[in-house]
Amino acid sequence: MTASVDKKKTGGLAGIIAGDSAICLCGAEEESLLYRGYRIEDLAKYASFEETAWLILRGRLPNAKELLAYKEELSRLRDLPVSLKAILEQIPKNANMMDVLRSGCSLMGHFEPEEKIRGEFEIPDRLIACLGSMLLYWYKLHQTGKRINLQTSANSLAGHLLQLILGHPASPEHIRALDTSLILYAEHEFNASTFTVRSITSTMSDFYSAICGGIGALRGPLHGGANESAMELIFRFKNEAEAETGILTMLKNHELVMGFGHRVYTTKDPRSAVIKDWAERLSQEAGDERTFAIAEKIEATMWKEKKLFPNLDFYSALVYRYIGIPIEMYTPMFVMARISGWSAHLIEQRKNNKLIRPLSHYIGPPPQNWLPLERR
Amino acid sequence: MTASVDKKKTGGLAGIIAGDSAICLCGAEEESLLYRGYRIEDLAKYASFEETAWLILRGRLPNAKELLAYKEELSRLRDLPVSLKAILEQIPKNANMMDVLRSGCSLMGHFEPEEKIRGEFEIPDRLIACLGSMLLYWYKLHQTGKRINLQTSANSLAGHLLQLILGHPASPEHIRALDTSLILYAEHEFNASTFTVRSITSTMSDFYSAICGGIGALRGPLHGGANESAMELIFRFKNEAEAETGILTMLKNHELVMGFGHRVYTTKDPRSAVIKDWAERLSQEAGDERTFAIAEKIEATMWKEKKLFPNLDFYSALVYRYIGIPIEMYTPMFVMARISGWSAHLIEQRKNNKLIRPLSHYIGPPPQNWLPLERR
Ligand SMILES: CC(C)(COP(=O)(O)OP(=O)(O)OC[C@H]1O[C@@H](n2cnc3c(N)ncnc32)[C@H](O)[C@@H]1OP(=O)(O)O)[C@@H](O)C(=O)NCCC(=O)NCCS
Ligand SMILES: CC(C)(COP(=O)(O)OP(=O)(O)OC[C@H]1O[C@@H](n2cnc3c(N)ncnc32)[C@H](O)[C@@H]1OP(=O)(O)O)[C@@H](O)C(=O)NCCC(=O)NCCS
Repeated sequence: MTASVDKKKTGGLAGIIAGDSAICLCGAEEESLLYRGYRIEDLAKYASFEETAWLILRGRLPNAKELLAYKEELSRLRDLPVSLKAILEQIPKNANMMDVLRSGCSLMGHFEPEEKIRGEFEIPDRLIACLGSMLLYWYKLHQTGKRINLQTSANSLAGHLLQLILGHPASPEHIRALDTSLILYAEHEFNASTFTVRSITSTMSDFYSAICGGIGALRGPLHGGANESAMELIFRFKNEAEAETGILTMLKNHELVMGFGHRVYTTKDPRSAVIKDWAERLSQEAGDERTFAIAEKIEATMWKEKKLFPNLDFYSALVYRYIGIPIEMYTPMFVMARISGWSAHLIEQRKNNKLIRPLSHYIGPPPQNWLPLERR
Repeated sequence: MTASVDKKKTGGLAGIIAGDSAICLCGAEEESLLYRGYRIEDLAKYASFEETAWLILRGRLPNAKELLAYKEELSRLRDLPVSLKAILEQIPKNANMMDVLRSGCSLMGHFEPEEKIRGEFEIPDRLIACLGSMLLYWYKLHQTGKRINLQTSANSLAGHLLQLILGHPASPEHIRALDTSLILYAEHEFNASTFTVRSITSTMSDFYSAICGGIGALRGPLHGGANESAMELIFRFKNEAEAETGILTMLKNHELVMGFGHRVYTTKDPRSAVIKDWAERLSQEAGDERTFAIAEKIEATMWKEKKLFPNLDFYSALVYRYIGIPIEMYTPMFVMARISGWSAHLIEQRKNNKLIRPLSHYIGPPPQNWLPLERR
């Protein structure tokens, strides 16, 4: 945890402390995870995503009245500006879903610009409520030719998202599975996308610019994109034996196994146990124990061979599959949750801002004399 | 230049080496600046922006044939996809111009996605050629009601941009002034926007996501936004005496004076002398020595009081004013140039990638016991 000039260590800023934060404690004793002091296991058991987002953003747990008001407020904010809908209709059918979210968020910056906004939490609350609507409006139009109604009867973000995806209300159990996943994905200290959000914020840029940067960073397979890659990996194998051989071959070829490993945790990702429980339960409900067994075989092989453990993305993929989320929507689901953590970091960065501007170690040529065009 | 755990020093990653780079040497002996080994003073005197962009991206100076082909290629790439134009038409008239560029760049990710692209430099060349077209197409439509032709007769980016802005070909001197400014703005090591681009790239995300992040970071007044703020500052004063008093008051009130100071340079910004020469020449041509004198008085006062020197943004503002660029377009001009540096860093990051993921120093509450909703 100490800074160092040793290049191997500082590569990718590994081990470098880039600033103070009161939002999240990640990877301290026994590889635990706290949001604003509360354990992730407690939040996953007792809280809702809305309660967690409030906690992350406002710094304390809401009381019953505040929570109810917050859920009502978020429901009210689900619909999109008509002009944004019109533009979403023109984004091609085959676009990448993370790109749709990035464009949608950027376009919101024109229609609801920050200068016009007063409350500190107005933009994050709005984005928590409506980012999913953006994606689903575009997706359903291209899939069914219909302009869907973005005001569902669901009283939670998880219920709202599933209802838009499925076209009908989801079961309470599936809603709770997604709700739990959103809690686990909500916040994670100075991860790559959050640090990107803070870097953009540090120039005193606007809210939408910072969040667009976060979405862009999360898109990559080394970060949020890993949940989609994990599903593709699990699907590649027909049974446990194939999975074991396949993983051994991948490791021999120095291929990355998506959904494993972590920069900060060294022996386990505390979120993984929670989501694995859900994956197991849902696989049984779906009568698909085989896929779960394949996933467990991958986990066992990775641990045996490399002492690498599944991160949150690995079993999240299975959960998403069982509750009916299309695979290209896995990383977007991560966005729906992480928008709360990004926003809390953005607000914290602004309160004690310093431009984020490191140095590079120069490995280029020494000063050259000018070489006129005719002599090249 | 050494890393340290001392918090004051590491705040904002000041003094922290975040990786290797062969593109730019900034702030070495005598506060010089090299692009790929070539001095910024030589590039500003002998090279064109296109030659500089080629150098930054490809790592060597082009020969005469390559340069000609490159300029022709960039001219050919100026027009926009019809679908993008249709969307730009729907972005409101009063939108922030940096937001328009951020959305335009994001939308290009749908219409010309990276998966479909083969050449390593295809996206950066395309964006160098057409980012200005995006902004000007939108701007002119809202200003004049006309859909402008994006294929101008100009044979340089500077000429093209000025011709679109003015509605007629610009003078060779004004074109060369903008060309020089684009050279100076093209690249600057691990500045905040470039580091943002590298952070997004480090998750293995796509080109457009990274560049959108760069645009978002550049938008802030502590970074690219400073050139617009500098112009507003200079305009505030009617004469030199007022400027001196005004700056003294600002400093007494601990206000930031935009266009001054730098994270890496300590006594001067080597780019400032070059652009100041241009500002002086153009102020004389325009018969507006008064404004130039006000700017010099601000410079003298800042040096006397705080030993702070003008950075590139300060006199760039004056140059842009004299060549007829609207003030809200100053930071976008910075984008037109820096896209080359961002892209070179993106390509370099990919060649030796490691996820950029630092740590935070936790200052939040210790672990809390769960507090049920009914007891809050
Ligand atoms: C998360 C991750 C980027 C952290 O990376 P990091 O801190 O930069 O560590 P490195 O990538 O340098 O990994 C260290 C070593 O472990 C290996 N390793 C790490 N994760 C691995 C994985 N998932 N599969 C195979 N090998 C892995 C690396 O190849 C490297 O081996 P080497 O020393 O022989 O080169 C990395 O574990 C990874 O790429 N995981 C897969 C993507 C993923 O699941 N991302 C989601 C994270 S929540
Ligand atoms: C560029 C900049 C962000 C670098 O900042 P930094 O390395 O983080 O340094 P700091 O902001 O901590 O500045 C150090 C001290 O100088 C002062 N300072 C720096 N730039 C100043 C400026 N432009 N006007 C007034 N004071 C300034 C700071 O207030 C600070 O004083 P303190 O120690 O009494 O608090 C900073 O100089 C700045 O804000 N400049 C104005 C914006 C600008 O022109 N940006 C374009 C940069 S190319």
